[in-house]
Amino acid sequence: MTTRWFGAPVQRNEDPRLLRGQGMYVDDIDLPGMLHAAVLRSPYARASIKHIDVSAALTLSGVHLVLTAADLGDVLEPSPLLIPHQALTQPRTQLPLARDEVRYVGEAVVFVVAESRYIAEDALELIDVEYEPLPVVHNLEVASAPDTCLVHADVEGNIAAHLAQVVGNPDEVFASAPHVQRERLTMERAAAMPMECRGVVARWDVYEKMLTCWISTQAPIPIRNGLAAIFHLPEHKVRVVAPDVGGGFGTKIMLFYPEEILTPFASLRLGKPVKWIEDRRENFISANQERGQVHDVEYAFDDQGVLLAVRDIFLHDTGAYTPYGIIVPIITACSLPGPYRLRHYYSEFTVLYTNKVPVSPYRGAGRPHAVFVMERIMDRIAQKLALDRLEVRSRNFIQPDEFPWDVGLTYQDGGPTTYDSGNYQAGLDKLKVMLDYDTFPTKQAEARKQGRYLGIGVGYYVEGTAIGPYEGAHVRVEPDGRVYASTGVTTQGQSHQTVFAQIVADQLGIKPEDVIVTTGDSQAFNWGAGTFASRAGTVAGSAMHLAAAKVREKTKLLAADVFEAAPADIELADGKVYVKDAPHRSLTLGQMAIKANPLRYAYGENARKLAAMNLADARPGPALPAERGGPGLEAEGFYSPPHGSFASGVHGAILEVDPTTGMVSFLKYAAVHDCGRLINPMVVEGQIHGGIAQGIGGAFFERLVFDEEGQPLNASFMDYLIPTAAEIPALAIDHIETPSPLSPLGVKGAGEAGVIPVAALFASAVEDALAPSGLRIREMPLHPCKLYEMLQEVQSLERAVSQQIQPDDK
Amino acid sequence: MTTRWFGAPVQRNEDPRLLRGQGMYVDDIDLPGMLHAAVLRSPYARASIKHIDVSAALTLSGVHLVLTAADLGDVLEPSPLLIPHQALTQPRTQLPLARDEVRYVGEAVVFVVAESRYIAEDALELIDVEYEPLPVVHNLEVASAPDTCLVHADVEGNIAAHLAQVVGNPDEVFASAPHVQRERLTMERAAAMPMECRGVVARWDVYEKMLTCWISTQAPIPIRNGLAAIFHLPEHKVRVVAPDVGGGFGTKIMLFYPEEILTPFASLRLGKPVKWIEDRRENFISANQERGQVHDVEYAFDDQGVLLAVRDIFLHDTGAYTPYGIIVPIITACSLPGPYRLRHYYSEFTVLYTNKVPVSPYRGAGRPHAVFVMERIMDRIAQKLALDRLEVRSRNFIQPDEFPWDVGLTYQDGGPTTYDSGNYQAGLDKLKVMLDYDTFPTKQAEARKQGRYLGIGVGYYVEGTAIGPYEGAHVRVEPDGRVYASTGVTTQGQSHQTVFAQIVADQLGIKPEDVIVTTGDSQAFNWGAGTFASRAGTVAGSAMHLAAAKVREKTKLLAADVFEAAPADIELADGKVYVKDAPHRSLTLGQMAIKANPLRYAYGENARKLAAMNLADARPGPALPAERGGPGLEAEGFYSPPHGSFASGVHGAILEVDPTTGMVSFLKYAAVHDCGRLINPMVVEGQIHGGIAQGIGGAFFERLVFDEEGQPLNASFMDYLIPTAAEIPALAIDHIETPSPLSPLGVKGAGEAGVIPVAALFASAVEDALAPSGLRIREMPLHPCKLYEMLQEVQSLERAVSQQIQPDDK
Repeated sequence: MTTRWFGAPVQRNEDPRLLRGQGMYVDDIDLPGMLHAAVLRSPYARASIKHIDVSAALTLSGVHLVLTAADLGDVLEPSPLLIPHQALTQPRTQLPLARDEVRYVGEAVVFVVAESRYIAEDALELIDVEYEPLPVVHNLEVASAPDTCLVHADVEGNIAAHLAQVVGNPDEVFASAPHVQRERLTMERAAAMPMECRGVVARWDVYEKMLTCWISTQAPIPIRNGLAAIFHLPEHKVRVVAPDVGGGFGTKIMLFYPEEILTPFASLRLGKPVKWIEDRRENFISANQERGQVHDVEYAFDDQGVLLAVRDIFLHDTGAYTPYGIIVPIITACSLPGPYRLRHYYSEFTVLYTNKVPVSPYRGAGRPHAVFVMERIMDRIAQKLALDRLEVRSRNFIQPDEFPWDVGLTYQDGGPTTYDSGNYQAGLDKLKVMLDYDTFPTKQAEARKQGRYLGIGVGYYVEGTAIGPYEGAHVRVEPDGRVYASTGVTTQGQSHQTVFAQIVADQLGIKPEDVIVTTGDSQAFNWGAGTFASRAGTVAGSAMHLAAAKVREKTKLLAADVFEAAPADIELADGKVYVKDAPHRSLTLGQMAIKANPLRYAYGENARKLAAMNLADARPGPALPAERGGPGLEAEGFYSPPHGSFASGVHGAILEVDPTTGMVSFLKYAAVHDCGRLINPMVVEGQIHGGIAQGIGGAFFERLVFDEEGQPLNASFMDYLIPTAAEIPALAIDHIETPSPLSPLGVKGAGEAGVIPVAALFASAVEDALAPSGLRIREMPLHPCKLYEMLQEVQSLERAVSQQIQPDDK
Repeated sequence: MTTRWFGAPVQRNEDPRLLRGQGMYVDDIDLPGMLHAAVLRSPYARASIKHIDVSAALTLSGVHLVLTAADLGDVLEPSPLLIPHQALTQPRTQLPLARDEVRYVGEAVVFVVAESRYIAEDALELIDVEYEPLPVVHNLEVASAPDTCLVHADVEGNIAAHLAQVVGNPDEVFASAPHVQRERLTMERAAAMPMECRGVVARWDVYEKMLTCWISTQAPIPIRNGLAAIFHLPEHKVRVVAPDVGGGFGTKIMLFYPEEILTPFASLRLGKPVKWIEDRRENFISANQERGQVHDVEYAFDDQGVLLAVRDIFLHDTGAYTPYGIIVPIITACSLPGPYRLRHYYSEFTVLYTNKVPVSPYRGAGRPHAVFVMERIMDRIAQKLALDRLEVRSRNFIQPDEFPWDVGLTYQDGGPTTYDSGNYQAGLDKLKVMLDYDTFPTKQAEARKQGRYLGIGVGYYVEGTAIGPYEGAHVRVEPDGRVYASTGVTTQGQSHQTVFAQIVADQLGIKPEDVIVTTGDSQAFNWGAGTFASRAGTVAGSAMHLAAAKVREKTKLLAADVFEAAPADIELADGKVYVKDAPHRSLTLGQMAIKANPLRYAYGENARKLAAMNLADARPGPALPAERGGPGLEAEGFYSPPHGSFASGVHGAILEVDPTTGMVSFLKYAAVHDCGRLINPMVVEGQIHGGIAQGIGGAFFERLVFDEEGQPLNASFMDYLIPTAAEIPALAIDHIETPSPLSPLGVKGAGEAGVIPVAALFASAVEDALAPSGLRIREMPLHPCKLYEMLQEVQSLERAVSQQIQPDDK
């Protein structure tokens, strides 16, 4: 493979446009005659709907349509269950508009379309919904209590799913293990909080009989397929475009959010374009959330700190519905073993309904929970045996010669959880150098003398990435010499316009800036899954590579004909196609594309060049026969990974806790990351940077709080803390590359990595900082208030230091 | 091949829509904010432009843009020469707007865009163009006169092209032939006169950076490629759609008519949609025309009536420009030999510029001229030797065992003129029966006794069809069970939505009504040439067949997986895919399409069926691997014929001439047609019907008349006669089928056939009716007025009958 651009820190193709304010987000679309929608949402976490009176709203001037469940006809179907699973015995999905009962604060009840958003919102206030409030399941404790009230009347015990998996013989190991400990660990709800909330613009084109939807989504192709089925339209008469998307983080994978059906429904009904833009308040109460779990974990280890077995039983909060199946708890279960040789493992989870916003994957998707659990275990072993925390990890690592390593579980994609490659000790060794790990105890002790509480913590993770089923790509050289590449995956900041361009540029001998990549437009490329599960770079990138390689081969065959040379003697470089050692026998790639069109049309400079070389044939003729891939320098490529890859990484931080306020500041943060071969190290570092920032939010700041009525108590940025640049430390990133043997480019996937280990290392570092207090961190996010409260509960820290309180392990 | 539908007279898929008025022609498009254009055209056939003052037009309220040549920037380039030829030594093409000189009445000078067509036309009247009239070349005689004025100052003798071809040794044969005769034959200009004139709607979409043009054209893909080059846009950012087109007949193949550049130019400039619709007056003076030739033909034959040699030297009127090269006269030269064994042939033509509308192919495209010449020769031989006219033809036919027959000339596509198959005598035998030929002399004699002048005439032709370079097609099965097929060719009444559907339906075991065919939309299929040269059915039809066959194979492979059966045991019939002899192992074709989507989305009935058969996989997975053609039941096919096919046919008619008025009425009309295998005999008959009607116009009614100043004298339907239903007789059509060995389906092409021999048989029949007068027909169209004048010139017909005037052959 030519690798001039692959692996280089190429500047981003997207930046000139975005930095000049030329981004095109859904809300930037302003179509002639466009109407605007607003949603009336349930103020109750659980209530019966007795009656809806929309008559006053209908009379408001400027109101075009008021939809309740009764108006939806055959579209009033529960959304599809995206990923069924045999353990999900009681799946429930949402109606586009609630009919008889609302099940969370924010559930959509009425959809209003008017000439402006102002009028639409005014109309909402004129709608009279008669609710009868019902008892609420506001958390996992209530959900699992005996004889509790039910989120769905027909789902006994609120149990959506239950799944147990066993590896080896944990019961036997526990019975004879030298040390057995157990702990309850809790993860509270958080949310993705993309800068751009959700949004939909739908346009029914009566001439084309074509429905176009611009949606801030991660999965336009599946949405296209679904909308076609729902509205009885041919798939190619529905176009779904994900334009620029201001962050997705999983919360925008969904199909279907109600508004993604209601907005096109309204456009079809009215024959006019309709826009709905989610405001931040709506985002807090209607965009899917994640994270809520409670783990009861038991672990066995020997005197050397070798982990012998784990028994992890956890509850998973799915909110009011299971739109995305049980992917998140499955990932938690499969991710828990991490980089460690865990031969005996019992995993059991129960998925419970609660009267809260439904759960679907959010960046990390169950992994931060798993890593939090396993890294807590590692720390506990170290604490128990008074070993260095990193030494305990080293003693448990899977070794480089043990790959492929079969964890023994069925992964989220239904395939085996088999690690393809890795070198965990190498990563840890790098990190120790970056953190000056060996000198830290001295620094810590010195600081403590000055009344400063410094701690160091490390979190190691293995992340399943690059799952199937497949992606595709189309690559086309145009007469202007530029290459237009398209794929079904979307982009929400992942720099696909750059990294895919690098991959294509290497094949076709051009610069990445001359490759124009289109993502997430079902009209540009109409096959694919979407951008999630850290898969786009690997799966769509491999498809890009395969498509571009086909175009390269077509180009060489055609050039061989044109120049009367052997295909093997044709070179592609610097935008030119030429005969090796005879550079005067040369055309630009664009001119070769003109030659590849059986009815070519040369113009201006290209026409003169072809004429001068006597290559502007006087008569049309087939350029490339069908058996060589048809006309034009274009080709499709599809890539379907045999199973997911497994990236890994280790983060470490030194932080300082202010014991009087509970505030924590980072003094140093370092990460070593292994996602196989790097397409663009600068881009990967950007991904890690963003992930760590989001991880710091999830470790310390961000926690959604609900009261006993299921009312969200901090549903605004006044109350829900997301870290700003001021809270994020300088980040030192380094890489190791253990190429994946699964994909043609050896890459894995880097999208979610940054966020995964942060809560784990944060807990470890805070415990380390406050070690004299014996404080134990058993929850994420920790939150400054919570840490303050915990500090109040322990004895005066000063006294604790002097008494050197021992860990209170059971 | 399965042939349930192939060959059957399937009802047209297009009819329910068109008969209900749901057609969508360019002028039906009404976009929000659309502006309207009108063109100021030259009132002179030749003049210098001294000055253009548009200031008054610009101040008219509602005018948005006034364009002269000076405003076009780098778009002010002569249109491309579509088909260069080495004999075309002085090609000239037109600027979008005339700059220094106008060269025909109707040439575009100023383009005005306003809020309505009314305002735009008012603005035209405010524009002051100062012309200096120049001497005019109004016909071939003037064009070829020594020291005449020049249409293009730098083209000496007005000679655009000159080409001579020789087969065998005609000089030698002429020197020793028993009989040599010569004659001058003239063909006057006519025009296609489609019911729908030309039209363009252009929309520049600022969000998509996409230019969409709806054009009433026969070649949207080449126009797309050209507009992309002209406006420096990527090809995939220009979409050209030929929606419903109300007749093309060749006159809509062009690229570029000025308005096809100016309308998108205006839309790009203004950022608004712009519509230009040609009115009938404009169509008469700015849509390309054809037919004008003068032949001096010399022919040698023996005593048995066997044609020994032909020497044909002709002038071809190309009008003011050569946008389409010299295709028309080349076709004339190649078509002249017809079904006859012509071993010695000298053909020479000179293409001359005149100050008239440019010439490009019009249905028949040079062939009616050739057939007129050759069939006049056959009649003259019969007259000279007092042989039956058909017997002379029979004595000269190429025999069925002589195929492939090499005519010895280079055809319009640059390939050999090689007839692939035919059975000319069989066609003539059928026609004789249909006309009751053998009993006609008795009827004719009886009628003559009653003062009625009946004549019989026959015209035989061979028509080159199905030229390359290629066409392609895409076939896609959708979950609704319908199949969506698309191709780059356009349709203007050829029933492609039906015949392509038949071809696809046979492969996929469904009904033709469940195949939705899209033609002429560069976004639906972006490769191809267009619909002309009687090629779409064969070339695009073969591509359809190949694409559908691929989908059939993909379906069988997938079904074999799904049902765990051998691919060879899978059947496709009645919309179902099932295992042979196990019909319960069955899915609909639509359900199989859902299975072929790696991220399938089943809904409603389909979901229930798949679930019931345990085929609604719980997890997504690749359906068909890339090496089996990628996901989905879809495939592309491309077909490139090795060279053109040659259809043939013979028409005959019995007509009656009213000697007092010169009016002619048809008593009987019969045609035997051989276009290889018939996809749909009803559709082929419809094509023949329309062609004959148009041929009758071209034989008798339609003639464009210009005065010495190059002013058209009959540029309206008040003066230019096109036949109505009243003038068209009942038509009896029969077929013979000599399958083409060149294409996978054995079809040839039928689009132009009907029109080709009509003028020839008309001349023959009129001469026969008026045989006693010795009248000789040497021109087409004859026109009622002209026949009346000719009848005045001969002696009183009554007297002529009594004197039995002999033919005045030289």
